[in-house]
Formats: sequence, structure tokens, C-alpha cells
Amino acid sequence: MKRIILLIALFINVTAFAQKEDSLHIRKLFDAALVEGHAYNNLRSLCKDVGARLSGSPEAEKAVKWAKALLESYDFDTVWLMPVKVPHWVRGDIEEAGVNGKPMGIKTLGGSVSSNGRIEAEVIKVQDFEELAELGEKAIKGKIVFYNRAFDRKLISTGDAYGGCVNQRWDGASQASKFGAVGVFVRSLTHNKDKHAHTGSMGYEEGVKKIPSVALSIEDAEMLSELIKMNPNALAYINVNSQTFPDKDSYNVIAEIKGNVEPDKIITFGGHLDSWDVGEGAHDDGAGVVHSIEALRILKATGYKPRYTLRCVLFMNEENGNNGGKTYAAVAKEKGEVHVAALESDAGGFVPRGFTMDGTPEQIKQMQSWESLLEPYKLHIFKAGWGGVDIGPLKPQNVPLIGLRPDDQRYFDHHHSDTDVFENVHQRELELGAASFASMIYLIDKYGLGSSIKQLKED
Amino acid sequence: MKRIILLIALFINVTAFAQKEDSLHIRKLFDAALVEGHAYNNLRSLCKDVGARLSGSPEAEKAVKWAKALLESYDFDTVWLMPVKVPHWVRGDIEEAGVNGKPMGIKTLGGSVSSNGRIEAEVIKVQDFEELAELGEKAIKGKIVFYNRAFDRKLISTGDAYGGCVNQRWDGASQASKFGAVGVFVRSLTHNKDKHAHTGSMGYEEGVKKIPSVALSIEDAEMLSELIKMNPNALAYINVNSQTFPDKDSYNVIAEIKGNVEPDKIITFGGHLDSWDVGEGAHDDGAGVVHSIEALRILKATGYKPRYTLRCVLFMNEENGNNGGKTYAAVAKEKGEVHVAALESDAGGFVPRGFTMDGTPEQIKQMQSWESLLEPYKLHIFKAGWGGVDIGPLKPQNVPLIGLRPDDQRYFDHHHSDTDVFENVHQRELELGAASFASMIYLIDKYGLGSSIKQLKED
Repeated sequence: MKRIILLIALFINVTAFAQKEDSLHIRKLFDAALVEGHAYNNLRSLCKDVGARLSGSPEAEKAVKWAKALLESYDFDTVWLMPVKVPHWVRGDIEEAGVNGKPMGIKTLGGSVSSNGRIEAEVIKVQDFEELAELGEKAIKGKIVFYNRAFDRKLISTGDAYGGCVNQRWDGASQASKFGAVGVFVRSLTHNKDKHAHTGSMGYEEGVKKIPSVALSIEDAEMLSELIKMNPNALAYINVNSQTFPDKDSYNVIAEIKGNVEPDKIITFGGHLDSWDVGEGAHDDGAGVVHSIEALRILKATGYKPRYTLRCVLFMNEENGNNGGKTYAAVAKEKGEVHVAALESDAGGFVPRGFTMDGTPEQIKQMQSWESLLEPYKLHIFKAGWGGVDIGPLKPQNVPLIGLRPDDQRYFDHHHSDTDVFENVHQRELELGAASFASMIYLIDKYGLGSSIKQLKED
Repeated sequence: MKRIILLIALFINVTAFAQKEDSLHIRKLFDAALVEGHAYNNLRSLCKDVGARLSGSPEAEKAVKWAKALLESYDFDTVWLMPVKVPHWVRGDIEEAGVNGKPMGIKTLGGSVSSNGRIEAEVIKVQDFEELAELGEKAIKGKIVFYNRAFDRKLISTGDAYGGCVNQRWDGASQASKFGAVGVFVRSLTHNKDKHAHTGSMGYEEGVKKIPSVALSIEDAEMLSELIKMNPNALAYINVNSQTFPDKDSYNVIAEIKGNVEPDKIITFGGHLDSWDVGEGAHDDGAGVVHSIEALRILKATGYKPRYTLRCVLFMNEENGNNGGKTYAAVAKEKGEVHVAALESDAGGFVPRGFTMDGTPEQIKQMQSWESLLEPYKLHIFKAGWGGVDIGPLKPQNVPLIGLRPDDQRYFDHHHSDTDVFENVHQRELELGAASFASMIYLIDKYGLGSSIKQLKED
């Protein structure tokens, strides 16, 4: 009995000591990010020196060089490039659309075919694919289909609102083409009532005639909606000359600090280096890139010696193919790499609110057990949910996938538009995100996921 | 035994039913605020039609009329004005300062005396009052004292950083004057490294010679700091002609919905109608004004019949005297009014994170018991803390004081400066704040504070 009590007392002491040590180290990580952090200046450089960087573009190549040089400057254990084949779609130098001769603010959707000159046709507005099917070929044929489904304002999470609308962007062209449409207007996927159209990826269904698809700004979507109510026969036009070229060679950019106890086990964390070809890819996903680099930098700068290998991965091609993520997972599988966890920051540089995890209930519970250590930094969300697009392909290898969750109210204001620029990122919010990301990596490295008590005892 | 089990079962059922009803009504409040809410347009009107509105100014008078007319348009049970005497300080038409002949971006601090023409003197930089005292009269006499203590970047809460610096603004002039200083420069109370100086209130110690005190923008504070390092004898100047006039008559603007069960008990909630005389008082405290009006509007619009009287109070003169808050508490005491709780929104229109309460542990626990109802709206902070300046004078009457806590990273970027304008408020963040405020009022009205179980049983 005495021995059991002694063991319990010892265990409580060990736990209390570990808690204290963790709380001190997490404080150090936040201090390092907030006082003389590099995240904000790194983001400025990525946005201003490199700029928008769509896969296959010269700017994406420049981003690879930029990231490699920056990571090398930090003297991590290794920095290398992982080859990735990427698609190569190019927005045309002609990008025009309008109605009744009045031009509208548009962006050709990524992947869209050229209109091969000017298309002119009447416009038919639909809410969704159900309405499209009800209207049928008779109403649709020869027209431009206008998908005008708006973000649902009732949804607290703007990500949920995006999820409720994104099929009109991705699949709208093929669905409309089946009924003989000649082109597609898509209301931008945002709450933001401004003049900027939001681009994003779209695809074509095999065997269906490819028609051009362009995003309208919310202002123009609302104007067009009113105009065709008054004048259903108004003529609209689309003239875009985007092109798809053969795939190109590119890279995931990777840096590591080797583990001190189990170097063959890996914690991967990253964001995506590519962006759309508009704005500067500041929130999407410059923020995730500099969060990840800064996390590795401050873990090193605070003298942390990781148990596992910490690997920062800047993925290429999240926006239109996810070939970086797919390649990374395929290479990991081929090499038989063991991943303790994979984390992603791809939800912007806004104030961090917590983390969501695509993992087992036990793993999620383990993450939740750290809440008291992270609550002083106003991190409160620790629950089951989305990991990230880039790390998604690791799922079949049973890797727990964890997504940093910044506040999302403003994210889609800028997403894939001309306003996703450095000036719309807040320095402290960005820095808090980097420190939060680093703290979660630290805790996973110290305790693993789902076996914390066991590991503490073994140490 | 059977009876006890039955009673327990009945209690669980009642509780589950109440939870369901609450969750549905809170959802209605959010829908009302988010889908066709009035908060954003009301704020636009306050900012653009009225503008900055310092106590005693014609714009503050206009704000009183604006608020009364708006509240009357909503057909609440009563709308009235409560007379409040307010100070009347006026920024001068001359507001100049500089160094080596180069002008700097300044704002005279509210309450500062005129410089009575141009003061020219050497500058001595101090970190705090301790350094000032160490330097003493020999070093200080005849000089302009420059308080350059910066916000502590390590502090997660910007409110804490503000708290660590605000004494240089409030008391800096008198402390420096005691050692013979002729004027004071104060580094603006913000993290934001821009060209805008941030004003705010200052006071004078009785019996100490009054010297002028002005805020410098962070850019100019950093420039001045560098310049006097190189050239300690550089001459700086201050020329400001602010004036204090006799007190004026003004008003708190109040609207009520009468309680259906205990109309003599009151839940008061509000923000302050006055602002500084720069920018548009959008976050400080236009947001709190429209949060409060919107809360009362949506509680009514969703058909809620309150137990207690719900009273929306738009306080006058929070910024430089708090006479609205003091008068309100004095009148309440005189009339023997019973307040169930007082809530304030005076921390900006940013995304709401929760509530803090200055109350008993039992009352705080009661608030925390509602967390699961509010967590779907990403409200996570429910803890002991600050209520608000306006409601503060109710404290001696043992009223629990509750503050809405929006995210604070951006608050001091705009606070008391030219950039506190409508355009820097985000529509959905503002609307979420209004709905959160209304939800807390709803829960307090239904369950009181500190006696939830008892009341549920009695109903």
C-alpha cells in the first residue's frame, strides 16, 4: 500500500514538474515569436519580392528558391527539394465580361478553357444544380448560366458557408454544359460585397463539352441579378483566353531538425507555397508558409531538443491539383516513413483560436488534455475536424491530421482575390499563429498523440 | 425513494427542455443579427451622420438626438433622456509640435492646457516615473519630458499592455511638472507603428503647475528617440491652444422593455455614446452603442418576453469624466432600483470571444454554466474580470458587472485615433458581437445570476 502511495506521489510530482516545464517553454515560444519574430518580415518578403505564385509560373519557381534560401539561412539540420509535377494553367491577357455593353469585374476560374473569342448570349440565373436540372435544356441551351447562390449568413463559420457554395465554382461549367450552356458566371465565394472577383479551381467532367467559367464580384453579381430581373433578354458577353500548357517540374521545399530520441519518426507541419495568380497569396497561404518556417525557427531558437524529427514542408500546388501533398504522401509511403502527426496551417494569418484534428477519439482527447497549457494564449478550440488539403493524402497511412484554426470571419473576404495582400495581414495575429503552431508541435513531440501517460512514465 | 427518483427525473426533463428552448432562442437571436441585422447600418449612420462626438460638443448633442430618434423608431416600451453634466474641453485650432524644425504627428491629450504660444526646449526621454525621479530637477528643469514606454509585446492581451503604459498619458504632465518640465510628449498607447497619434484623457494633480501634454505617433516617437540619441541638444517645440469651458448639460439616452414577471428588477446594458474628437468613434464606442441597441431590438423582434426589465443605456461622457456612469448609478441608488446585472460593450466591434465578470464566485460559476449554449457561436471566455467603465459606479450597489470581450489584437490600433472609423469595423464581427450580447442578456434574464437551479424549480 505504501509503495502504491509513493508511486502515485511520484507520478503526481513528475506530472506537475512536466506541466511547469511545458508552460515555461510555451511561454518562451510566444516570446520568441512576439518580441523579435521573423514571421511578419518573412511574409512581407514573400508577398513583395515574390508575389502571386501559381504552380507552373516563373513566380512559383522564384518562391521555391526564396523558401530554400530562407530555410538555409536558419541553419537547420537539412534543407532539400522534393520534385513534384504540377499543372500549368495560365490566365489570359484578355479577361473581359459584361452585360448590356457594361463591363463587369471578373476573374477567369483556374482551369477554365478560353472562350475562343467573344461569346454573347442571354443570361439565366440559377440557385443550384437542382434548379438547373428543372429548367432543363429548353431554357438553358445557348445561354450563359449564372450561379448566384450566396454564402449563408446564418452559418457562424465562414468555412461552412464556403462549403455550401463551392460546387457551383468547381462543377458549375460541366453541369451547365450538359444542358447546352455556352458559358458560366459564378458569384464569388465570399461575404464581402466589393468589386473584387474571387478566382479558384474548377474542373471539367470527362466527355462533357468544356465551356468557359468566370467569377463575378459580389457587386456585379447583385447588379446582374437585378438587371436580368428587369430585362431577361439582356445580352452578356465573355471573352477570356486562358490556356493550359503541359505539366511542369516543381518542388516541395523541406527543412528538418533531427529527432534526438527517435529520429526515424517524423512530425510534419507546413503550408502551401503556391498561391492563386492574383493578389499576393498573403493569407492563402503565405501565412501558413511563414507560420511553419517560424515554428521551426523558434523551436530551435528556444533550445528545444526534439524527441522526433521535426519537418517543415512547404507544399507546392495545393490550389490546383494538390500534387505536392500527393507526392509527399507517396514518397513517405515508399520510404516507409513513420509520421507521428501532420499539421497544417492553411486558413489564414488571423488570430488563432485553436486546432481541429482528423484523428481517433483517443488522439483528440490527448490534444484536449493540453488545453490548460494553451488557454493563456486564448486558444480554446480543440476538437475533431479538418486537418488540411496538403496533409490529407497522409490519411490512409493513419497519420493524425491537425489543422491550425485562426478566426475565419475575414478569411473569405480576401481569399483568391486581389485583396489577399500583405497589408491585410495583422502582425500580432500572424505572430500569435506561428507561436500557437509551434506550441502544438512541441506538445506532440513531447507526449505523442494518444499515449501521453505511458511516455511520461518511460522517460 | 421512488418519489426522489421521480423528482430527479422531472428535474432532468425540465432542465433538458429549458436547454433546448434556450438553444433555439439563442439561434434565433443570432439569425436576427446576422441575416437582416441593423447593427452595421446603425453604426454607419452614427459614424457618418454624427461623427466624432466628444462630451460638450455640438456633435455629442447631435448624437443624443440621433440615439433617441433611433430608439423611438423601434417602438420599445419607453425611451427617455437622463440629464448628465459633462466637462467641455475643446481641442485648439493650433496643434503643432516638432523637433529640429521638423513637424511631428501629434494629438493634444484631452484635458491638456494650452501652451500659450510656442514652447521650445530640449527633450529628455524617460521610461517611467522611477527614471524621472532618479533624473530629478537638475536634469528635467526647463525641458520637455518624453515618455516613450512602449506596449509590452509579450503580453497576449493588448488591454494588459495598455494598462502597463496608461499612467504616462494620465499623470505624465504633473509628474514631470514637479521637476520643472515645461511640456510633455507621450508615446501613443498602441502597438501600431503608423503616423497617427492617439489621444485620450489626462489629468492634473492639484497644486502642481499645469503644463501641456501631447501624444506622438509611434513613427514620430521612434524618430524622436533616435534623433535625441544622436543630438541630445536638439530643440523641440509644442504649440497647442486647447481650452476648457464651463460644464455643459447633456444626457444618457435610455430605452426599456418592461419585465413581465418582475418589472421592478432591471438588467442594464449599454455602451457609451460619446467618443474622442478624432476619427469617428467607430470601435470606441460606436460598436458598443449599436451592440446595445441591436440587442434590445432582436430580443423584441424574436418575441422574447423578459422576466425583468431590460434597459439599454447609452452613457454620455465615458471618455473624460464618466459622468454618465456616475449619474446613472446615483439615480439608481436614489430611486432604490434593483439591478439584477449590468453589462457593457466597450471593447470594440471585433469578433466576440466571451465575457468577463466582476461578481461573486457563485455568479461567475453561473455564467460559466451557460458555456455549452454559447460555444457553438465560438464564445469561450467566461471568467472573472473587468466589467466596464460606465457600469463601474454600480459596483457599490453589489451589481454583478459583465463585459463583452471581443478579440483585442486590433483594438488599440485604432483607439482614440483618426483611424477609428466605420471602414475599420467588420460587418459580421460587429453582428456576432450584438447577438452574443443579446444572448447573455437573455440567459441572465431567464436564470438570474447565482440562483439558476432555484429559479428553474420555481418557474
